[in-house]
Amino acid sequence: MDASVASPQRVLVVGLGLIGASLAAALREARFAPVVAGFDIHPAAVALALERGLIDEGETSLPEALAAASLVVLAVPSLAVEDLLPAVREHVRADAVVTDVASVKGGLVAAAKRVFGELPPRLVPGHPIAGSERSGTAAARAGLFRDHRVILCPDGGTDAAALALVESMWCGTGAEVVCMDVEAHDRVLALTSHLPHALAFTLVDALAREDTSEQIFRFAAGGFRDFTRIASSDPVMWRDVAVANRKALLVAIDTYAGRLAELRSLVDRGDAQGLEALFRRAREARGRNLHWLGLGADMPASGGVSS
Amino acid sequence: MDASVASPQRVLVVGLGLIGASLAAALREARFAPVVAGFDIHPAAVALALERGLIDEGETSLPEALAAASLVVLAVPSLAVEDLLPAVREHVRADAVVTDVASVKGGLVAAAKRVFGELPPRLVPGHPIAGSERSGTAAARAGLFRDHRVILCPDGGTDAAALALVESMWCGTGAEVVCMDVEAHDRVLALTSHLPHALAFTLVDALAREDTSEQIFRFAAGGFRDFTRIASSDPVMWRDVAVANRKALLVAIDTYAGRLAELRSLVDRGDAQGLEALFRRAREARGRNLHWLGLGADMPASGGVSS
Repeated sequence: MDASVASPQRVLVVGLGLIGASLAAALREARFAPVVAGFDIHPAAVALALERGLIDEGETSLPEALAAASLVVLAVPSLAVEDLLPAVREHVRADAVVTDVASVKGGLVAAAKRVFGELPPRLVPGHPIAGSERSGTAAARAGLFRDHRVILCPDGGTDAAALALVESMWCGTGAEVVCMDVEAHDRVLALTSHLPHALAFTLVDALAREDTSEQIFRFAAGGFRDFTRIASSDPVMWRDVAVANRKALLVAIDTYAGRLAELRSLVDRGDAQGLEALFRRAREARGRNLHWLGLGADMPASGGVSS
Repeated sequence: MDASVASPQRVLVVGLGLIGASLAAALREARFAPVVAGFDIHPAAVALALERGLIDEGETSLPEALAAASLVVLAVPSLAVEDLLPAVREHVRADAVVTDVASVKGGLVAAAKRVFGELPPRLVPGHPIAGSERSGTAAARAGLFRDHRVILCPDGGTDAAALALVESMWCGTGAEVVCMDVEAHDRVLALTSHLPHALAFTLVDALAREDTSEQIFRFAAGGFRDFTRIASSDPVMWRDVAVANRKALLVAIDTYAGRLAELRSLVDRGDAQGLEALFRRAREARGRNLHWLGLGADMPASGGVSS
């Protein structure tokens, strides 16, 4: 950790789902702060997080919890995080640093500008590129972010010490931090994450709506299982992502639908050469980029997009 | 093995790619026949299969190999198998049983009718629902079919002893055999296998064709990796599948494109309720059918579709 970054006295994680509870557990394990406190609108989630030793203290009042924290992590779905901002403005200490983990950053920044008049210098938008088709407090684990990337989206007005604190928090979980601007984040994630989730949900739903869906699923093999794993993801989280990143996701869907129409045309014409060329291009592109898709040893130690 | 099924004296596997070489290795391991011979148009594949102990004997002449075998397995891509049928008609012994492993069955049956005037009683169309994004002799392993399903597509004229022999061959590899009619096979596989492969190839190719594709792949996470694994599959095999199952694949693509248009409309309208309902339906359908998608203990011991 950079010597100039003061450790926070009290971290508050708001929202103890998979991401929030895993982050709390990782911060406890790394002894990042004397106290890692947790709040959730579902008291059962707080109780479970306490019972599992994922948090040091459970909070029952959000205003009091916000007022007591030196670092606040908003770990709720992309639309819910916008609703938390008025409470943040009202209760958070002036010297506290606030960050979030929402999958869409444009909506958060726009909401912050509405609530605060600007993106506050000590509010650092963040997004860990980690997750699982399993969701909720029970699925949390301290190692979730190890060797994964976390994207932070500071702007020109972001306080350098606040950014450094949030960076040091994520480094403590074993993640690699890179910075991107908000629009690039939302566009890239629409293509690599939001679109694939939309495609997988659509495929499973399409098959389930066939007359003979039981027979259809019966003959699905391993490829189908892997391809559709992300269709078992949390519907509320992904509903919020789809709404919050509506514009970039529409562009991604339209791009994809255009490419699918090209494939359809190749199939319709029985264009063996064109089909093989497409499949070969895709296989080569995936092979070329597989090192990015790997974890641990496959992953380069540092990135080139970091600003 | 059914006592009425005579073991073949000599099995010939034509095509020593992933499926053919794995089948040969499994049959050797199960001591299914005194000799498991292999032929491939690439002599290097025969040499590698011999070196690795996947086959007992390597063949250098297809006509001679066909004439010597009591059970012939055609393990080449969906279009190449059609091209083999004239040689089969010319050289295979009258008492030999022939089967194949191609992913599309309608094309094979139509080609057989062209070449033989009917689907020969001792030609049993087959399709093991197993594979890997890795291809070729080097990727072969005897356990590939264990706890996987194999679909056979006999018709009313199929010889019962020939069918029993092919069933016993697959049972020897640890697979579960079910029978379906050709049209049902091609329609179901178009939805559960050919469509997902087409979607995954299309996604990777679409992203690779974006201006900033390197940055895009850089921020892809585990979900993307799993979702696109099948886009690393053999381009020639999948070219043949797309051409051979053209009609059913077009229907599957059109069904999917229609569902994707529905999703797009929900996103465009910001219909949070509709999106959540779709995602929830998909997650529930996948959860409900996960036992079919699992292997080993998750898989029911016997099926209900077998004819």
